[in-house]
Amino acid sequence: MKSPAKRPHVVIIGGGFGGLEAAKGLGKAPVDVTLVDRNNHHLFQPLLYQVASAGLSPADIAIPIRTVLSRFSNIRVMMGTVLDMDLSNRHVTLEDGQTLHWDYLLVAAGAKSHYFGNDHWAKHSVGLKSIEDAVAIRRRVLWCFERAEREPDPAVRRRLLTFVVIGAGPTGVELAGALSELSRRVLARDYRTVHAEDTRVVLVERDPRVLPPFHPSLSENAQRELDDLHVEVRTNTAVVDVTQGRVELDGDVLETDTVLWTAGVAPVELAQKVGTPLERGRLRVREDCTLPGHDRVFAVGDIAHQMGPDGPLPGVSPVAMQQGRYVAKIIAQDVARPGAQRPPFRYFDKGMMATVGRSRAVLDIHGVRMTGFFAWIGWLVVHLFYLVGFKNRVSVLFNWIWQYATYRRGARLITHLDKLDPEPPRPPELAPEGEPSATERASA
Amino acid sequence: MKSPAKRPHVVIIGGGFGGLEAAKGLGKAPVDVTLVDRNNHHLFQPLLYQVASAGLSPADIAIPIRTVLSRFSNIRVMMGTVLDMDLSNRHVTLEDGQTLHWDYLLVAAGAKSHYFGNDHWAKHSVGLKSIEDAVAIRRRVLWCFERAEREPDPAVRRRLLTFVVIGAGPTGVELAGALSELSRRVLARDYRTVHAEDTRVVLVERDPRVLPPFHPSLSENAQRELDDLHVEVRTNTAVVDVTQGRVELDGDVLETDTVLWTAGVAPVELAQKVGTPLERGRLRVREDCTLPGHDRVFAVGDIAHQMGPDGPLPGVSPVAMQQGRYVAKIIAQDVARPGAQRPPFRYFDKGMMATVGRSRAVLDIHGVRMTGFFAWIGWLVVHLFYLVGFKNRVSVLFNWIWQYATYRRGARLITHLDKLDPEPPRPPELAPEGEPSATERASA
Repeated sequence: MKSPAKRPHVVIIGGGFGGLEAAKGLGKAPVDVTLVDRNNHHLFQPLLYQVASAGLSPADIAIPIRTVLSRFSNIRVMMGTVLDMDLSNRHVTLEDGQTLHWDYLLVAAGAKSHYFGNDHWAKHSVGLKSIEDAVAIRRRVLWCFERAEREPDPAVRRRLLTFVVIGAGPTGVELAGALSELSRRVLARDYRTVHAEDTRVVLVERDPRVLPPFHPSLSENAQRELDDLHVEVRTNTAVVDVTQGRVELDGDVLETDTVLWTAGVAPVELAQKVGTPLERGRLRVREDCTLPGHDRVFAVGDIAHQMGPDGPLPGVSPVAMQQGRYVAKIIAQDVARPGAQRPPFRYFDKGMMATVGRSRAVLDIHGVRMTGFFAWIGWLVVHLFYLVGFKNRVSVLFNWIWQYATYRRGARLITHLDKLDPEPPRPPELAPEGEPSATERASA
Repeated sequence: MKSPAKRPHVVIIGGGFGGLEAAKGLGKAPVDVTLVDRNNHHLFQPLLYQVASAGLSPADIAIPIRTVLSRFSNIRVMMGTVLDMDLSNRHVTLEDGQTLHWDYLLVAAGAKSHYFGNDHWAKHSVGLKSIEDAVAIRRRVLWCFERAEREPDPAVRRRLLTFVVIGAGPTGVELAGALSELSRRVLARDYRTVHAEDTRVVLVERDPRVLPPFHPSLSENAQRELDDLHVEVRTNTAVVDVTQGRVELDGDVLETDTVLWTAGVAPVELAQKVGTPLERGRLRVREDCTLPGHDRVFAVGDIAHQMGPDGPLPGVSPVAMQQGRYVAKIIAQDVARPGAQRPPFRYFDKGMMATVGRSRAVLDIHGVRMTGFFAWIGWLVVHLFYLVGFKNRVSVLFNWIWQYATYRRGARLITHLDKLDPEPPRPPELAPEGEPSATERASA
């Protein structure tokens, strides 16, 4: 056996698409790897909107990172949070003070929702970046229906049944389409006083068209599909303010209890601690995904800003995955042949796709554009293929077939009600501790 | 069409086994039914321990109550909490002040964990009565493993990897067996520094044997199976105190961060508001499941205390279901033939079963006792059969086959970390608001 002390130590921060691919790529290399993530699971973010719209369970799209990597004996997984990194002394510091020394460092810590300087909007809206976010959206939407069912005041009912999605990129379009289907097809059937036409999903976009990064013909198609699904699309519309119970747009005010934010992401705060140049908050990286002046420090995925032939590479999972695999190869090459020339990273763009709802999608593969049912089948196949973990794939496929056949959604649970905003009425025994509940007041 | 105003109004409090069966039984009767529940879902409690041990997702064992009842146009489902009831004026009051007038009332509000007067134990332990409880147990157990993986101090590691289950009734036995399998077979494989023999599951029971309500020969068998699974069984052992990080038993102290409570349940507080005689906190009911002096007020399930030929009926789901169906029949008969004699309720005991782990169960059907693999198959079939909702059944069956074949568990998510006790170390950005996190302190 080789002595482990002599093997270079690679520390990977983040178990998303980039970090996980890099780790897998190093699984056979003569290095020791430590992957640190704040969560115990890798999350398949492209399907997160289906958890938010009660179609899938969290466990269907998340898998423990250590399960994915358990077959590689040179990889250690730690659940923890990196608070700081020291590039000159080559170590990172975790939340409990523990430090990890590294020979190679990969920063793949991802992004979070970004409100363009209006951080108070976050209080009155929910992003879609984590399992907790998705469950919060599900809880909020279902809870609005429950309250509407009991509410006699038409104005309040209208507010409860208006759902506003801000940002019409792929996530916003997918979420708006899924919410409209959930509201009109699934839920309206089960409630006595709520009818399909009472519900309203509004999709707000600052750009002149939905799916701005896609070809205009696909945007048009997606727009038509959204119309079909009764999603009210407001393009060319900026958000002026988001407060309790309302969204102010330029020229209109929407009364709503549910504002879902998919308009922007920014790198996690960690990016600012690295100390190398930033570009829109992201770590600027060179052709070989390293930070300027640090040949052994890489950054990939949403936290990195890398120039491609047509401008900066987009913040999508294929970029992160390809960068992660590339970094693994570069480190393996460094170890095998120290000083060898590093080839630059080249992003291979496989195309773009987005689904708008049941049997509806748009797809663009190098100029080959498809819409409708076959694009949707393509979307299904690709997403199932990339979904990590055999079991999740089968479970998701089964859920999809079941939903398609029955127009039902299997995961319509309201849980952790105590995590709702303090403002909406809640069952009184869920009031914060210390404050007497209505029950106690009544019996006192 | 008949005028709905003339139909008697039946209010059902609780959508558990008793309330749901009563509602279904009244679905064709000439009455209007309102079912009120604090949750939007009916929960299949017998499988809750499998959510706690990361085998199933919450959505696998819960289904929206209104979905189950949507085919009955005379039934309305409300998500809400009953705060008070007025038996003389025939109405119940909900948390928002709304009142529901009734002609017949069924109280089926169930039970909660009960600590025999030691309510401060609740702070340091988790019961197993709701989805939130089950997810809390899952989070706590998985988080202990994550911390143990990083922990160098052997004493702390031992504390983290000791799981104490209090109460060796069917739930306690099932939970202890599942936790031992999870710890030794599933998790130990994925962690680098945690080995099967480091983990410890202790099952504490005050009675001289596990599964006290079962025949002694089955208790013996269950005891052997638990031994096989490396569960440390402590019978004849009372709990003296439960505090942060430790459980004091008579004659021993266990250091542990994880205390799971299945030793007792008590009716929800609502029982005390009814104002009729209680028996061990439960509403005493007559032969026809009505409260003394109130011919139109019924109570069934865990909140009711009814005498059978061999003493009080046990707090198990078959009792609640049969009582619920019986009450529906009595109300329908009352409406069809006012004043007709009510036959008394008779409980038909179909037997008892409990599973101890993979391929292990004990089963007693009218003195026909079985153990081992075939008892386990019997357990599977019965639980699948009673699981409400076609989709859940298929999903659960698929999960079980997958777990059996692979020794994996599909739902190993740590979510809502901020809901952990304040005491154990947490990632600092999850610290309560207002208090500066370690990050902020470090950068200040």
